[in-house]
Amino acid sequence: MSARPQIEPPYLLFLGDAKDALAAKTARGVFVFRPEWCLGQLRLPGCNARLDLPEMTVEEAAGGGAKSLIVGVANAGGVLPDSWIDTLVAALDAGLDVASGLHVRLSDLPPVREAAEAKGRLLFDARHPPQDFAVGSGTRRPGKRLLTVGTDASVGKMYATLALEAEWRRRDVACTFRATGQTGIFVAGEGVSVDAVVADFISGATEWLAPANDPEHWDLIEGQGSLFHPSYAGVTLGLIHGAQPDAIVVCHEPTRTHMRGLPAWPLPELGACIEANLQAARLTNPDVVCAGLCINTEALGEAEAQALLAELGKAHGLPCVDPIRTGVGPIADRLL
Amino acid sequence: MSARPQIEPPYLLFLGDAKDALAAKTARGVFVFRPEWCLGQLRLPGCNARLDLPEMTVEEAAGGGAKSLIVGVANAGGVLPDSWIDTLVAALDAGLDVASGLHVRLSDLPPVREAAEAKGRLLFDARHPPQDFAVGSGTRRPGKRLLTVGTDASVGKMYATLALEAEWRRRDVACTFRATGQTGIFVAGEGVSVDAVVADFISGATEWLAPANDPEHWDLIEGQGSLFHPSYAGVTLGLIHGAQPDAIVVCHEPTRTHMRGLPAWPLPELGACIEANLQAARLTNPDVVCAGLCINTEALGEAEAQALLAELGKAHGLPCVDPIRTGVGPIADRLL
Repeated sequence: MSARPQIEPPYLLFLGDAKDALAAKTARGVFVFRPEWCLGQLRLPGCNARLDLPEMTVEEAAGGGAKSLIVGVANAGGVLPDSWIDTLVAALDAGLDVASGLHVRLSDLPPVREAAEAKGRLLFDARHPPQDFAVGSGTRRPGKRLLTVGTDASVGKMYATLALEAEWRRRDVACTFRATGQTGIFVAGEGVSVDAVVADFISGATEWLAPANDPEHWDLIEGQGSLFHPSYAGVTLGLIHGAQPDAIVVCHEPTRTHMRGLPAWPLPELGACIEANLQAARLTNPDVVCAGLCINTEALGEAEAQALLAELGKAHGLPCVDPIRTGVGPIADRLL
Repeated sequence: MSARPQIEPPYLLFLGDAKDALAAKTARGVFVFRPEWCLGQLRLPGCNARLDLPEMTVEEAAGGGAKSLIVGVANAGGVLPDSWIDTLVAALDAGLDVASGLHVRLSDLPPVREAAEAKGRLLFDARHPPQDFAVGSGTRRPGKRLLTVGTDASVGKMYATLALEAEWRRRDVACTFRATGQTGIFVAGEGVSVDAVVADFISGATEWLAPANDPEHWDLIEGQGSLFHPSYAGVTLGLIHGAQPDAIVVCHEPTRTHMRGLPAWPLPELGACIEANLQAARLTNPDVVCAGLCINTEALGEAEAQALLAELGKAHGLPCVDPIRTGVGPIADRLL
């Protein structure tokens, strides 16, 4: 397999003219999970998002040691407005690489491509897989793997995976966070947007992403979608089969009333979700276990949240945590 | 949604310099299922494959009414040898469209692209989806749908689907064969290679392929892969969810000793395969039924084959046929 392209930290986070905080949620995610990689933010006139970081020009960031500008902002349609191009070209001219999570490819923008070529800088499109993959082999490989799955899309799988990474490190357990979506890729500095891979290669791309490793090393793999989401379940299943997880952690948002984007679709029952994911995972790892539940209780009060965690943990006989409110220690206690 | 590009019959089947009959299996499949669309074959020096069709130059085919040349031959790596290019250019110059099932895009070959542009002819790459798709909505739509699934890849799902189409027509039931792979696309004159779609859009592409229709019309959808194949199960699941099948037909090859391409992998038990496919399909159509079993008994003698069909039919309480040996009448009897 070819060398993995890497996004080199430290980062200058580009917020563009984000119309609100949500439009800059990729930049925010990178800042939350890798504050030590974030030197500063660059905001254009009209930008309504803001992070707790110094404002910098590209020249100031480059002078301060930044290696990459991260386009951490989304706008309607995933296009890149002309008003951003000058900043990207200036960043390349100042010696930074540029990484983007937009649908449009940076190399499809002539001024950006030409500046990168002239300066020998890297353009990294997190949504576009950097190479072709082989189809999945199903062959077992050394090393341990954990995959987050969920009752729905966007229930906190990336957050849970990164909380597990922090806990594993705290306990001096060798591990690597494996990113499968754009924000995760900026947090890891590498990865594969598995939902952007050609369908035949979902499991093969996942095998590539989380390759053979030391027998005691853990890959902590960010999940995508849900087996119960009718738009994305194929991605989820290929990811499960390629990950060959020794353990899954099931993520859930208890106040959600329907599947994301589909008002007519109820969420699955948590027990059915655990069982369906284990059944799917057994095809490539018959010994897979469910190591715990990560419940996003942000919308609940403290007493209500603690009661719910206790109730779900008891009902399913599993460690049940909120990665933010309680940490994921009980899952590590069970698994390690 | 945009108009669907169509490959216009009649066809001239191009066998190139196929090194053996297997290399020309796409051309053979088209000839078996749509003999009335096949005017002739064009073989280059060294071709070791042959169909029961007149040999023709492109000029003879065009003079006889052919509308499209079909590249019905595979070679190692899916590339298109230089020695074929003259024939493709001559076909375009003679007024034919050109359709290919190779990995390489016809429009990436400059002489072919230029000839097509000069003559205003269509280049159709069956392996490359003709457009972008939306993500699957999961929304129910009118019309009936049947999907073939299987214990493994390459167990006869396309053949079974086309046999069902022939039987439905014999009974004057309105139906359309929906192709999801390259040979099927040449047989249908249109379709989507679902394994070549970007992973996020598998179910959405299937919803587009088999859209809303008259309530009594049947879409007969060609399946791909298997929920039990660790390389391709994601494609299979997205196809199931997008198809929203009212009925599935389970295909099986009883003499196969392991999953295709994976010597270490046993095939699933037939009952487990039926149940797993029904469970997956219930997400988008809770009323789905299994309408029967299609067993490829080509490798068995007549008595042994009939005994096996009777045994499996009884064991699973389903019509059990071999589409070639017995026809699919009992499945139609049960379902229509």
